[in-house]
Amino acid sequence: MKQNTATPGVNAVIMDKLVSLCKRRGFVFQSSEIYGGLNGAWDYGPLGVELLKNIKDAWWNEMTRRSNVEGIDASILMHPRVWEASGHVENFTDPMVDCKQCKSRYRLDVLFDEISLKKKKEALRELHPGKFEGQQKDEVIVEEFNKLGESSPSSLLSALSCPNCGNKGTFTEARKFNLMFKTFVGPVEDSSAVVYLRPETAQGIFVNFLNVQSSSRQKIPFGVAQIGKAFRNEINTKNFLFRTREFEQMEMQFFVKPGTDDTWFEYWREQRLHWFISLGMPKEKLQWHRHEPGKLAHYAKDAYDIEFKFPFGWGEIEGIHNRTDFDLSRHEQFSGKSLKYFDDETKEKYTPFIVETSAGASRSFMAFLVNAYAEEDAPTAEGQMETRVVMKFHPKLAPMKAAIFPLVNRDGMPELARKIEEDLRPHMKVFYDDSGAVGRRYRRQDEIGTPFCITIDSQTLQDQTVTIRDRDSMQQERIASAKIVEYIQDKLTKL
Amino acid sequence: MKQNTATPGVNAVIMDKLVSLCKRRGFVFQSSEIYGGLNGAWDYGPLGVELLKNIKDAWWNEMTRRSNVEGIDASILMHPRVWEASGHVENFTDPMVDCKQCKSRYRLDVLFDEISLKKKKEALRELHPGKFEGQQKDEVIVEEFNKLGESSPSSLLSALSCPNCGNKGTFTEARKFNLMFKTFVGPVEDSSAVVYLRPETAQGIFVNFLNVQSSSRQKIPFGVAQIGKAFRNEINTKNFLFRTREFEQMEMQFFVKPGTDDTWFEYWREQRLHWFISLGMPKEKLQWHRHEPGKLAHYAKDAYDIEFKFPFGWGEIEGIHNRTDFDLSRHEQFSGKSLKYFDDETKEKYTPFIVETSAGASRSFMAFLVNAYAEEDAPTAEGQMETRVVMKFHPKLAPMKAAIFPLVNRDGMPELARKIEEDLRPHMKVFYDDSGAVGRRYRRQDEIGTPFCITIDSQTLQDQTVTIRDRDSMQQERIASAKIVEYIQDKLTKL
Repeated sequence: MKQNTATPGVNAVIMDKLVSLCKRRGFVFQSSEIYGGLNGAWDYGPLGVELLKNIKDAWWNEMTRRSNVEGIDASILMHPRVWEASGHVENFTDPMVDCKQCKSRYRLDVLFDEISLKKKKEALRELHPGKFEGQQKDEVIVEEFNKLGESSPSSLLSALSCPNCGNKGTFTEARKFNLMFKTFVGPVEDSSAVVYLRPETAQGIFVNFLNVQSSSRQKIPFGVAQIGKAFRNEINTKNFLFRTREFEQMEMQFFVKPGTDDTWFEYWREQRLHWFISLGMPKEKLQWHRHEPGKLAHYAKDAYDIEFKFPFGWGEIEGIHNRTDFDLSRHEQFSGKSLKYFDDETKEKYTPFIVETSAGASRSFMAFLVNAYAEEDAPTAEGQMETRVVMKFHPKLAPMKAAIFPLVNRDGMPELARKIEEDLRPHMKVFYDDSGAVGRRYRRQDEIGTPFCITIDSQTLQDQTVTIRDRDSMQQERIASAKIVEYIQDKLTKL
Repeated sequence: MKQNTATPGVNAVIMDKLVSLCKRRGFVFQSSEIYGGLNGAWDYGPLGVELLKNIKDAWWNEMTRRSNVEGIDASILMHPRVWEASGHVENFTDPMVDCKQCKSRYRLDVLFDEISLKKKKEALRELHPGKFEGQQKDEVIVEEFNKLGESSPSSLLSALSCPNCGNKGTFTEARKFNLMFKTFVGPVEDSSAVVYLRPETAQGIFVNFLNVQSSSRQKIPFGVAQIGKAFRNEINTKNFLFRTREFEQMEMQFFVKPGTDDTWFEYWREQRLHWFISLGMPKEKLQWHRHEPGKLAHYAKDAYDIEFKFPFGWGEIEGIHNRTDFDLSRHEQFSGKSLKYFDDETKEKYTPFIVETSAGASRSFMAFLVNAYAEEDAPTAEGQMETRVVMKFHPKLAPMKAAIFPLVNRDGMPELARKIEEDLRPHMKVFYDDSGAVGRRYRRQDEIGTPFCITIDSQTLQDQTVTIRDRDSMQQERIASAKIVEYIQDKLTKL
């Protein structure tokens, strides 16, 4: 999954508010915060872990409760040959340069970005005397500079000064920097002991293709789904949970007979877009981005991304790729083991094509957060208007399903409210709140997106009824307290 | 979690059968098997991933659906100072030696194990002339040898030959080998860029203590629960899923006021043992192992392990530890940030004690597998007796909840059976099987522990009833097909 070029910073304020709410209310904390944090790593707090789990469970049930999709959970550490076969050892790289003088190290595109416009113009003039003497527009300079950077980085580097030490012409040739994290298995730290943290979960499915197929007695076409962590040693992490070094994927690889791949590709595109919509994302915040034929990944025949409209612009949350027979063929070649499928009925033997649906769990989490965030006018208890922040999560995804508010502290009231809490707790995540004015308690729950707030009042003591308030409409209903579980579960199923 | 010394290989046959069943039916595959596997890493197949998820969900609901326990999901990569504070950089080590001659490397205890009894005796005689000339018992030799290894490994090493090249006195001094996997963040592979794969999930909870407490408005006593992967660069991996390099933990850290820790320690011991029993483990297969006062970990005031009777002997599946204020104090010291708790009511400020319940998800998975495995006499359709292999999982944990068998291939029969399958599928994992004799279909489901098998027969076409067979009693009941979901869900809830 790559990040798309996105319009920068239109709604930076919303983003700041969201990051702040995430920390304050326990959705997301910075990893190792007391030590100053670890760049590109985040921790999910009490509400975040529930939201993330609800997203993952919704995806898991949607994908694996089909007769033709199986699940697996492969290990993060895999045999290093896997990444030779996949092409990651060779190709999963960014170009880097060192300054020979001060030993500073730069990713090439980052270095080029850091060079000022003035220095860019100077470098162009030096390399092409006479050509950049006039008053070219800034855009022209940047464009020409980048063009040269792509076509002939070495000559450009010779004309640049190191942004750190200021020396000119001290850069090494650009060389490839691999984005896989590597570590060593066993006590000896040499090349024979290198293993990688997987940069994607997909390969764990490919290498298990025949194991899954034979143990589950599936016939082609069928799919294998997996949720799990992956790691990339990104040089620039950015946009909160969008580009991180550690992230979670929800991937499904669907194995089909060659020739039927285009049909299945369309099928899964439709299915996956529908999934986001079914969980409350409006169509206008989602768009398709088709990879241009000239820019397809080396394994792909066709590729579409589902993009979500983030505050920083459109960004990919899922990719649907027609990977052809590239993966299985490569693993066959590198392992020397046949990964062909034998069709019992037609007696044909072939290498299946693969249609992949690869969603980011962490990115989906962020998209659902952004999508839920709303500021609205709402009446206070005194009848005045105030602004309420409300997270309009789909109730299935909401981390907290219900809150319980005892309204008056009368004899038997706290006990009754606690009893209701205890009855609900085995069935769902609930919060008990008896502190402060009821208006403030509602606002606290709105801010974390709790779909149902239950108030226990003096009438409850008389007739065992409670009120249930709907988060979005703010309308209340009075129902028997014995019916609360059923009422909420009914709403969760129907929505 | 450490492995306990366990009686070796009493039921090696059972273990072999189980590993074979795990592969054949899709519970567990060797990681990267087509490349010869990766030692100490395993993949969960279609049934394994469901069993593992059911165990983790059962634990998560048990632990976090309490008013005083919150969940989190912290990142695997953390700031390296975390592991200095925790003591892992300094102490999480095994002693290693190299042979200077042939460059072989050994973990000290493994080397000592590999030395034959004869060589052990020779070494002792050389070091203590005259003392081991008689006919000592083998146990005495081994004991003396190990004692010397602990007290004076260097002198012992000088008297030993390398098991690889046979040269004597060629070993280096023993030095510490750290069991944490390390990697590098960013493009420069130097000491300032080192980060570790967490060797335990606990630290992610400790460093988030105040973030969780303030965002969730919890008051002490309260706990924080987490499920996640951890990694240890074990030199010897062994016993299938029992000691692996990559594994999953289910940990809860309970923060209490000093002085109340002993009471909470007893409370959580009782709760955790009960959890395993509630999911079908008989008391006689579980035992407590108390860490001897002299052998407690540096952070612990008291520690008990729950051990399960594996085929290879008793092995730890969960540890309940009184960690005192060690962890929070150390992180306070190393981060310079206060991690003290302020009690609003008593106006006291203190560093909480921590009672930890640390279960292995992977080890629990293996224990539940072992516990479920049974071979029984069962009647065939022809009334003869045969042996059936049946996995007697608790129905809540069973990966497949129901199987659907159409008995005769008559008009409308497959459609009716498929309709029942489709009705069940959104609610639970089900399997449709129309191939072979019904007796064989039952055996296939028994072997994976499916608690309910539904047969659709000619009577179904007339009165819309089906039979449901109970896995353990093998008794059948006839019920309305419209009631199947309710019937099964009812059984799952009540059990």
